[in-house]
Amino acid sequence: MKKIRIGIIGAGRIGKIHADNLRRHPQAEIAAVSDLFAGPELEAWAAARGIGTVTKDSMELITNPDIDAVFICSSTDTHVPLIIEAAKAGKHIFCEKPVSMELDRTEEALEAVRAAGVKLQVGFNRRFDHNFKRVREHVLGGTIGEPHIVKITSRDPNPPHDDYIPRSGGMFMDMMIHDFDMARYLCGSEVEEVYTQGAVLINPVFAQYGDVDTAVVTLRFKNGALGVIDNSRQAVYGYDQRVEVFGSKGSAAVTNDHPNTAEISTAEGLFRDKPLHFFLERYNEAYIEETHMFIDSLVNDKPVPVDGNDGYQAERIALAALLSLRLGRPVKIDEADALQKSSLESV
Amino acid sequence: MKKIRIGIIGAGRIGKIHADNLRRHPQAEIAAVSDLFAGPELEAWAAARGIGTVTKDSMELITNPDIDAVFICSSTDTHVPLIIEAAKAGKHIFCEKPVSMELDRTEEALEAVRAAGVKLQVGFNRRFDHNFKRVREHVLGGTIGEPHIVKITSRDPNPPHDDYIPRSGGMFMDMMIHDFDMARYLCGSEVEEVYTQGAVLINPVFAQYGDVDTAVVTLRFKNGALGVIDNSRQAVYGYDQRVEVFGSKGSAAVTNDHPNTAEISTAEGLFRDKPLHFFLERYNEAYIEETHMFIDSLVNDKPVPVDGNDGYQAERIALAALLSLRLGRPVKIDEADALQKSSLESV
Amino acid sequence: MKKIRIGIIGAGRIGKIHADNLRRHPQAEIAAVSDLFAGPELEAWAAARGIGTVTKDSMELITNPDIDAVFICSSTDTHVPLIIEAAKAGKHIFCEKPVSMELDRTEEALEAVRAAGVKLQVGFNRRFDHNFKRVREHVLGGTIGEPHIVKITSRDPNPPHDDYIPRSGGMFMDMMIHDFDMARYLCGSEVEEVYTQGAVLINPVFAQYGDVDTAVVTLRFKNGALGVIDNSRQAVYGYDQRVEVFGSKGSAAVTNDHPNTAEISTAEGLFRDKPLHFFLERYNEAYIEETHMFIDSLVNDKPVPVDGNDGYQAERIALAALLSLRLGRPVKIDEADALQKSSLESV
Amino acid sequence: MKKIRIGIIGAGRIGKIHADNLRRHPQAEIAAVSDLFAGPELEAWAAARGIGTVTKDSMELITNPDIDAVFICSSTDTHVPLIIEAAKAGKHIFCEKPVSMELDRTEEALEAVRAAGVKLQVGFNRRFDHNFKRVREHVLGGTIGEPHIVKITSRDPNPPHDDYIPRSGGMFMDMMIHDFDMARYLCGSEVEEVYTQGAVLINPVFAQYGDVDTAVVTLRFKNGALGVIDNSRQAVYGYDQRVEVFGSKGSAAVTNDHPNTAEISTAEGLFRDKPLHFFLERYNEAYIEETHMFIDSLVNDKPVPVDGNDGYQAERIALAALLSLRLGRPVKIDEADALQKSSLESV
Repeated sequence: MKKIRIGIIGAGRIGKIHADNLRRHPQAEIAAVSDLFAGPELEAWAAARGIGTVTKDSMELITNPDIDAVFICSSTDTHVPLIIEAAKAGKHIFCEKPVSMELDRTEEALEAVRAAGVKLQVGFNRRFDHNFKRVREHVLGGTIGEPHIVKITSRDPNPPHDDYIPRSGGMFMDMMIHDFDMARYLCGSEVEEVYTQGAVLINPVFAQYGDVDTAVVTLRFKNGALGVIDNSRQAVYGYDQRVEVFGSKGSAAVTNDHPNTAEISTAEGLFRDKPLHFFLERYNEAYIEETHMFIDSLVNDKPVPVDGNDGYQAERIALAALLSLRLGRPVKIDEADALQKSSLESV
Repeated sequence: MKKIRIGIIGAGRIGKIHADNLRRHPQAEIAAVSDLFAGPELEAWAAARGIGTVTKDSMELITNPDIDAVFICSSTDTHVPLIIEAAKAGKHIFCEKPVSMELDRTEEALEAVRAAGVKLQVGFNRRFDHNFKRVREHVLGGTIGEPHIVKITSRDPNPPHDDYIPRSGGMFMDMMIHDFDMARYLCGSEVEEVYTQGAVLINPVFAQYGDVDTAVVTLRFKNGALGVIDNSRQAVYGYDQRVEVFGSKGSAAVTNDHPNTAEISTAEGLFRDKPLHFFLERYNEAYIEETHMFIDSLVNDKPVPVDGNDGYQAERIALAALLSLRLGRPVKIDEADALQKSSLESV
Repeated sequence: MKKIRIGIIGAGRIGKIHADNLRRHPQAEIAAVSDLFAGPELEAWAAARGIGTVTKDSMELITNPDIDAVFICSSTDTHVPLIIEAAKAGKHIFCEKPVSMELDRTEEALEAVRAAGVKLQVGFNRRFDHNFKRVREHVLGGTIGEPHIVKITSRDPNPPHDDYIPRSGGMFMDMMIHDFDMARYLCGSEVEEVYTQGAVLINPVFAQYGDVDTAVVTLRFKNGALGVIDNSRQAVYGYDQRVEVFGSKGSAAVTNDHPNTAEISTAEGLFRDKPLHFFLERYNEAYIEETHMFIDSLVNDKPVPVDGNDGYQAERIALAALLSLRLGRPVKIDEADALQKSSLESV
Repeated sequence: MKKIRIGIIGAGRIGKIHADNLRRHPQAEIAAVSDLFAGPELEAWAAARGIGTVTKDSMELITNPDIDAVFICSSTDTHVPLIIEAAKAGKHIFCEKPVSMELDRTEEALEAVRAAGVKLQVGFNRRFDHNFKRVREHVLGGTIGEPHIVKITSRDPNPPHDDYIPRSGGMFMDMMIHDFDMARYLCGSEVEEVYTQGAVLINPVFAQYGDVDTAVVTLRFKNGALGVIDNSRQAVYGYDQRVEVFGSKGSAAVTNDHPNTAEISTAEGLFRDKPLHFFLERYNEAYIEETHMFIDSLVNDKPVPVDGNDGYQAERIALAALLSLRLGRPVKIDEADALQKSSLESV
């Protein structure tokens, strides 16, 4: 049985989760891990998992001839150079989203991947969620006919720490990018135009950086369907992850997952527990599946389930959404392409 | 358009509700109302509704040649004599449940009805409930195949006042009789045997009268199906009225009705309002429909939807359930027939 | 007991429903009904309800000194002249929505009402719906904190007949106007700006008249909250009427009402019946309550629950939404005021 | 970090599942596996997991001084002798349910465990289910007050193969034993009396062996509460696992888990997918937790979460339920103790 030998670049929370999930795949083997801050703690973590190599230098992994594929889980600004180097070295690549925050940089990375003929999967984990997959199956299967309206609600239980805000990439590139990918995935069509309504209602720090914490974005798809996404950085009742696709023959809607089905009835009313708290709980299984499908794609030389173009298209929409917020008018996705080279800050 | 002229016997809460519901039927007209305690208040009530006759004497209604049908809403002990007199006078009859608490008395009443060729409908209002009717339609339509298990939950929000308990007829004749009727109605088969587990867990006053406030009764139907009914005199979260019929091809289940669909999500959890409070709220529409169907049966000379035999069969099961409680063993319905002439108190 | 004597102007479907609902109020009396097409059928209908006067001439009702209030249920183009005449004649007025499709005409009608000191209630029936009222109570009660996002879904089960489309007033004035009112009612704030995405996805006839059959409208409220409304002229699974208010302390959401709670489980899956079919079923109780509250306002000389300004504000938003559709950009509500005198057709 | 070295006795489906679940615990190590039918297939399975020893002889594991604990996953008739040998050898024991089908044999095994001072955990996996645990927390926490009625529904999606039926131990010892344990666990009280209504409605083969495929069992608990369990060998819509505890201050109820939350609305109605198919899907996480808690009990020398007495008490109730079915009357749990030495066949 063929084994895929993997190097993990960036051993933060998500890097470690991917590593543990990969260990459960019979054909995956973690050969090495790199992290800028590698030290005794990471070494202990690696030792407990039988991972032989721990290094601060990601190039050590990329140039290691025994490694078949790398997982790029380091900070966003490192994604493009690492993809380019890994591609040149003939490694297959799993890269966290977004590839970059600049379209031309992302294009550069994709070009390197194409040139090298390696595979690149982008970490849109939600595509592997049991709920969203079921909606997609019904859309593809024709149950609901032609899509007319795609609705996505995505709200975090807590805002990030204040110091993360300036380097997050902003609501559209950091958070709503998942929903832009989901919109494309569920509707089966590219987005043509977006219009953003945004507000700072939760934490004034967002405003300092030209960011928002609450937004409603309207979409127009190439196939004529309309869409709407609402995001909030703080839903006090927990992670709120719902979608609905409404079409000519009906609708397919999913609501949240809960830690249990208990309904408590008392003299005061009926109660149930809040939804699963945040992405690690809600998308636990999806994270496993995305890495296992990546390994399967390599083992069987099949296309990856989410490719570089998927990453690129979501970034285009995110940039257009931000531009719409700044301009106060609807923006065609093509406009974002044109504008992206100049700083959005100057808009 | 033919009009059915009605006399209401007993103007307590349920008598007045029937009167107001009948007024909404275009072919019903309330001609008279009688009540032992008729006085200025009842007269005012009647006057506001254009009801010409108010009397203390029910026989005035029964002998009135202008009256086509009577609604017997007086206390249970008066049902049999009133049915007999009304039948003799050729009046059609709507009688609240139970017809009586003694099977031979009920038989006597039914015999009088048969002899006179009048119609008798018994007030099992729940058969007209939108939820239970839908379950029945699925059972009759074959959706769930052959019934295997019938489950009924029926719990009141509050126990009755202490002084009502001794004259209530007990949990089986007063409360669970509705569920015995529902069991027959949903299963489409007669009950053959019952076994009762009862307890006094809410109010010790029930024990003083040999009554219980909590009970689980197992049923065996003639068609081989099994059943179980649970009753409580106090569900603090409100009126709990659920049924489920499980069969060879699936199940049909209904849960409670709520005053609204609002779901409130907060940092503490998810909340919704309690079910509709009690029978007047929950069975509001069912009460209307049972009286309107009675009128329709008279206008079109069709069978009534719930007849005297339905009343009789439910009473048989109620007596058998009480006997089972006393004997601490399963009881065939036939046994209750044999024993009923001797006082159950002596068992 | 004081009685309010009412004249019904326009005896179409909704006029008749109001009449029957009013008859259930102990202090309302229908004195007369007018309809351009009054004939034997309407006379029979009126006779069965003891309504003495049937006429083709609405002025006969308006000038009748025995009449206290009129219900204007005739076509939209007649609303303003009838309001003006009725106000001059000192009648209280219940008028179906919209008051008119032109803001200056509506202002004229409101001015006449103010000058005459009569009461005017506008027929936004959904405010009286048990579900939406419960959401509003939670918003007012502070359960969900400050509103951040208001989401409204409103979809009809079937599009109107082709010949109704040109005289409907268009999706925004005919259908979404209810949602604009609901948005103001639930958010407790005026709308400042709207942006419309619309499409013709169901019936090309809508396009012939510059109308749409599918729309997503984004709102910005004066209090900083955002909103989104989606409408479709055809939800094949039935009338879809949901709202959600998301705020700093939680959310309050309501979903559809169903004809029963039955859940059917078979080898194929779990099934339940579609929602209540259309507005007559869903808002049955709300229609009763709006007329009864109007009567109560007259009897007790209290403010009406939905006044002329409520009608006016919803019309402003509807016009702005249409303007946004035409211009392809967000529109301030104030802009609609300025533009309304010139024909929107020329935009 | 201390490691617990484990021998798996019986490498059927459940033995293999336990092994894989144990491998995910950082302090568990599978040292050996025995199975009567061990062969190349099992050797390959073991090799892939780094399990050094594969043998046909369970005594080889039991006498191996390097092994700390055994998992007894072989057929029920081997449980008692294996427990006795393992206890004598000083091994801790995890044993699948039931310990045996004869109470005196179970007592013998428990005596050996006590004498040796080893730990014994019985495989009532459902206690570790997220839903049932949440109900229990609410019962213990006092949310619902004193328990009055415990209701358990437990239905399998498919009956077992015909040839399994005679050696299954019958519905009460094979299937309902889980529910008897759940009843004790949720009610926090021992069962005093049972009454069984059983029927053969699915497969006549059950009747050949004196078994039933459908049953409703009523319970009376020592604390005065009542209970009811219904079982079916065939719910065509899937594994049906629900409980409800109703008490003086409210109720706590859990329904099934589903593979997703998708609700599909079409012109035919509303649909969702069936519950998780069977015990492996539904109790996947519970199986993991029961083995991990066993390991934790050994590592920290704490009591096991489900001990030998729990196994014994559930067996007593199962025997009493069978006796009740045979005798057609309620049976005290004590009666089953007395009768168990004589063959139940002779009853």
